[in-house]
Amino acid sequence: MEKVQQLNIGLIGAGVVGRGVVRNLARNTDLIAERLGVRLNLKWVCDKDKSRLKNLPVPASVLVRDAKVVLDDPNVPVIVELLGGTSFARTVLLDALNRGKVVVTANKALLAHHGEEIFAAAARNSANVFYEASVCGGIPIIKALREGFVANRFPLIYGIVNGTCNYILSRMTAEGKDFDEVLAEAQKLGYAEADPSLDVDGGDSAHKATILASLAHGFWTGLENTYVEGIRHVTKYDIEIASELGYAVKLLAIIKTADASDSAPIEVRVHPTLIPRDHVLASVGGAFNGVVVRGDVVGETMFYGRGAGADATSSAVIADLADAALNLKCGSVQRVPAFVAHRLNARVRTIDDVESRYYLRLTVEDWPGVIAKVAKVLGDADISIASVLQREAPESKPGHPPSDHVPLIFMLHVAKDRAVRDAVAEIDRLPVVKDKTIIIRVENFD
Amino acid sequence: MEKVQQLNIGLIGAGVVGRGVVRNLARNTDLIAERLGVRLNLKWVCDKDKSRLKNLPVPASVLVRDAKVVLDDPNVPVIVELLGGTSFARTVLLDALNRGKVVVTANKALLAHHGEEIFAAAARNSANVFYEASVCGGIPIIKALREGFVANRFPLIYGIVNGTCNYILSRMTAEGKDFDEVLAEAQKLGYAEADPSLDVDGGDSAHKATILASLAHGFWTGLENTYVEGIRHVTKYDIEIASELGYAVKLLAIIKTADASDSAPIEVRVHPTLIPRDHVLASVGGAFNGVVVRGDVVGETMFYGRGAGADATSSAVIADLADAALNLKCGSVQRVPAFVAHRLNARVRTIDDVESRYYLRLTVEDWPGVIAKVAKVLGDADISIASVLQREAPESKPGHPPSDHVPLIFMLHVAKDRAVRDAVAEIDRLPVVKDKTIIIRVENFD
Repeated sequence: MEKVQQLNIGLIGAGVVGRGVVRNLARNTDLIAERLGVRLNLKWVCDKDKSRLKNLPVPASVLVRDAKVVLDDPNVPVIVELLGGTSFARTVLLDALNRGKVVVTANKALLAHHGEEIFAAAARNSANVFYEASVCGGIPIIKALREGFVANRFPLIYGIVNGTCNYILSRMTAEGKDFDEVLAEAQKLGYAEADPSLDVDGGDSAHKATILASLAHGFWTGLENTYVEGIRHVTKYDIEIASELGYAVKLLAIIKTADASDSAPIEVRVHPTLIPRDHVLASVGGAFNGVVVRGDVVGETMFYGRGAGADATSSAVIADLADAALNLKCGSVQRVPAFVAHRLNARVRTIDDVESRYYLRLTVEDWPGVIAKVAKVLGDADISIASVLQREAPESKPGHPPSDHVPLIFMLHVAKDRAVRDAVAEIDRLPVVKDKTIIIRVENFD
Repeated sequence: MEKVQQLNIGLIGAGVVGRGVVRNLARNTDLIAERLGVRLNLKWVCDKDKSRLKNLPVPASVLVRDAKVVLDDPNVPVIVELLGGTSFARTVLLDALNRGKVVVTANKALLAHHGEEIFAAAARNSANVFYEASVCGGIPIIKALREGFVANRFPLIYGIVNGTCNYILSRMTAEGKDFDEVLAEAQKLGYAEADPSLDVDGGDSAHKATILASLAHGFWTGLENTYVEGIRHVTKYDIEIASELGYAVKLLAIIKTADASDSAPIEVRVHPTLIPRDHVLASVGGAFNGVVVRGDVVGETMFYGRGAGADATSSAVIADLADAALNLKCGSVQRVPAFVAHRLNARVRTIDDVESRYYLRLTVEDWPGVIAKVAKVLGDADISIASVLQREAPESKPGHPPSDHVPLIFMLHVAKDRAVRDAVAEIDRLPVVKDKTIIIRVENFD
């Protein structure tokens, strides 16, 4: 083997992912060096918590508790930020960029909240930010979007981007259990955090949707413009009915152009979605992620893999380090810049204007004429009904409606979101309607 | 938009894919320039057949019939070879490399047959060859393997890499039709060539398997070491029985390390395979491709998309042009070289030593003691039987065995390929066995 150059790396944040990067770099270090012609050398591994620096396959001289030591080192051109959070991580990342260093991060929250500021800092300092690990863990979806599919416009990107929610929905589906029960088990097994809000309320998926949308459409779409709904209101009862109707329930991130024109607005939304049970994403189970990318040239593609976890995420972090290493070797740090703004489609459509199909589950009194009353409200709003399903009153058990109330399911044809929500608000004011109506959007993506 | 540089490209071969590249480059040319900061400029579009140069969205001055004009142009640093075949294409490609030009190709046959020579020429001339479009059309699988998954060893890669075979098998399965009937229809619809041998005999899949195996394992595995079986001998009858047993029949390319050691041999094989019907690849239908990549760091991943066709393939060709353009802009043509040899696992295992499970369909006389006779041959060879299925004699109709003969299905536990084939040869010499036994390998990839 010819003599290889060496890239000094400073890793800040030795949590689960940070330790995974250290371990996996050590595992395949010679192989990676042979492939790249550059050796990835961990010059510093930093964490303020001493206990996290134990039992790592690096010399003790590498371990440090003060991030300043790492940032100050002029012989470290690349910083790996694996701190998590949006406060100290932001400070570290901007500090590194302001010194002209290249940063590799897995921090989707930070990018979603402060992406514009971070990308601007990278550009201003002729530096760069790599963030493959921020979306869908080990799946090289960022590289695919901006390199593999560089020839394409992206009329549609959608997928399962949060493993915790997918794990919970998959188990609710397979075992007919309630959200709360499965969440508790997921927490016990380490698939959900003690405070699961960021996952189950859709925030994490919204971070990833915002990053993907911005990359795909060449303007910063903004987290505040990403519509988000979590999965807490999805019941096993709705999953059961959906299944009877031929659908699976998945939490999806959906990024869609309204039409094929260059000025079309973009929809960026995260919500539980009914998809046909034979759809390829319906078979993405457990903690896995799956993303469908429709390009105007390449057509329909799909990527599947582990969306989280120390190993999968470190595969992506190391791939970014490899890109950074090759760029530094070539003297071209910004070969593919952190973010390229172009002018297409520079507007996000509000959820009010989104068009979708819908599943409505009403809880009504078993009384003649109820369907007609509801249908009248929908008809007056020009919302067209695809089918109505009246179920037997279910046994009264937790998670099911009371047994003296009858569930009534309406499947709607395509309608505007605002119109549907307004109509449902009106329906819920009808005296025969006994509980808040459940609304789940329905997509078949054809 | 800042002023962008321009990359002059000479495209040679204006067939289906070549014309697709011209059309799609024109379609998204401004967008691609904005993303790259380099404009991809088709300086020449060349084909010796004048009719192929008609109706293309380029000025007439760009069209030329003599490849020498393109190769001789010192202002064209990048050649796109889309001629197909291994003769003139090889000459053009080597000529371009010897002039230090970068080549982009979709030619899997050429690479599989002459890869070593071509990669050596690229290295010798400080040039480069990009070939994303040679494997799985628009799916960025080459980029994923050598960039996205650079941190990984690859214990297992397998998938559907030939759309024609997958189309035929999918239709045989869905419609219960025979191979010949579906092939004829596929030819009529343009899903199969007039001479379908390269596809249906597995040769095209073997080309792709050889390229993927060589890339993944860092040595030239050699087409002659890729075991290949096509799909002509797969009957609708076997598909039907497989389905009853819970399996789908797919033509797979399989690249597998025998064990986790660095010196483990590699299996590179293409053959019809029974996979569990709920396996993700079982749902890859029609002309689509799907590849599963198992990395020792990233875990299980899957890529899915159109494996052929003008548009999908040109998406990959244009992505390669983009990479070439960025490299030239940075003055680093070999940033990711055409091929990096490293020393892991430098041996291909022969099919004789491959271990698999097996489906055997015997055609026997309906006579007491037949199962015992067959079981004895298998037992003497230390091959262990998982289950035996004796079917009713089927109605005699085309594609089914004669009705006075009884089909007898053996599912075998893991055994060595050579041992199974030898045992089956012996079984086929038993007087009670009335036709050649059908052998299909069975994998569940767990």
